[in-house]
Amino acid sequence: MTTDVYEALETFMLSCMDDSAHDSEHVYRVLYNALAIAREEKDVDYDILIAACLLHDIGRIDQIKDPSLCHAQVGSEKAYRFLLEFGMEEAFAQQVRHCIATHRFRKNLPPQTLEAKILFDADKLDVTGAIGIARTLMYRGTLTEPLYRHLPDGTISDGSEDIGHSFFREYKFKLEKLYDRFFTVTGAALARKRQAIAKAYYESLYWEVSQGYTAGQEELSRLIQ
Amino acid sequence: MTTDVYEALETFMLSCMDDSAHDSEHVYRVLYNALAIAREEKDVDYDILIAACLLHDIGRIDQIKDPSLCHAQVGSEKAYRFLLEFGMEEAFAQQVRHCIATHRFRKNLPPQTLEAKILFDADKLDVTGAIGIARTLMYRGTLTEPLYRHLPDGTISDGSEDIGHSFFREYKFKLEKLYDRFFTVTGAALARKRQAIAKAYYESLYWEVSQGYTAGQEELSRLIQ
Repeated sequence: MTTDVYEALETFMLSCMDDSAHDSEHVYRVLYNALAIAREEKDVDYDILIAACLLHDIGRIDQIKDPSLCHAQVGSEKAYRFLLEFGMEEAFAQQVRHCIATHRFRKNLPPQTLEAKILFDADKLDVTGAIGIARTLMYRGTLTEPLYRHLPDGTISDGSEDIGHSFFREYKFKLEKLYDRFFTVTGAALARKRQAIAKAYYESLYWEVSQGYTAGQEELSRLIQ
Repeated sequence: MTTDVYEALETFMLSCMDDSAHDSEHVYRVLYNALAIAREEKDVDYDILIAACLLHDIGRIDQIKDPSLCHAQVGSEKAYRFLLEFGMEEAFAQQVRHCIATHRFRKNLPPQTLEAKILFDADKLDVTGAIGIARTLMYRGTLTEPLYRHLPDGTISDGSEDIGHSFFREYKFKLEKLYDRFFTVTGAALARKRQAIAKAYYESLYWEVSQGYTAGQEELSRLIQ
């Protein structure tokens, strides 16, 4: 890819971002993840992959305005139209459209090309490890959701019971289960490298708050009468 | 302390909270931390300590409305007035007021009683370890601050350079430096137990994003020409 084309794609991507959520940093991380995966694969079309990575979330702003929209679907069409108007070939624009349309997990719309599988894995990698924990906590913070919830007996739920949104629930229902859902061998290997810190962090946090609660309640029941 | 008094203090505390930030959970964690520290100390007045813990952040809502106010100062006076109106003795209300007024680090207003030192340490403990990381990320999320910033050469700052707010900067300037600032031996020991996970988490996060950036930029400079 030439510098001119890269910069045009990057400029278009940035123009589509409401970057208060720092989504452009996510886009660059996904691009770097994709290049790390691609390095271990044969016959990758880098022009398709780079274009798909840069443009994969340009539909997110539309989904925020209208939550009934799917950002992968909207973004794939926006990218397709942009690439044709920019003078890219029809086949190229179609390939990029497929990558973007399938980067969000949907059973009936799996990624089918190598570049689409790499984008899918590169995007999922940004929800693994320490970065996945950080992005989830910051996002849950904007929603003013709690870190954890209490069970009916007062103890702190580890998130595996379905008792309303919390960071622990998001960890148990989403973050913890990610690691088996990669399409490329390299994507899965990179994810597994990051798994230990996410697990250690969650377990430490759960221990700190649940052990604190249990010991504190014991002391209180002795002191308050 | 009797159940009636505990419940009255708890009810007043909850009535002072705008709990969208889940501040009441912080209050209970501080109370449990304080009881864990107190267990290792001699001659703790538990009535003063429990009252001070429950009421230590009741001025926060006033500071949010008027940022020129100090929540420790406002909260200490609110607690003092409440306790007198509730029928507690003057000396007791004064002791609780001192604990609350000095729980926020100010060189010219250090905690001077044992209960004040325990409250100070118990509150700081909630910024250590995994819970400190989680609270900071969620709070930075509500401010839509970035996780990290780039240095002029494009690389990712580890937070030690003063280039605007970010989670990494908050870690380097605040979270990393907490562990030497405890007044009680037990508070310091509990904090040190939690230090390893905070350090491991920060270092993993920095490695994931900075190594990703460096390797990705190298690949890009080979591919984009």
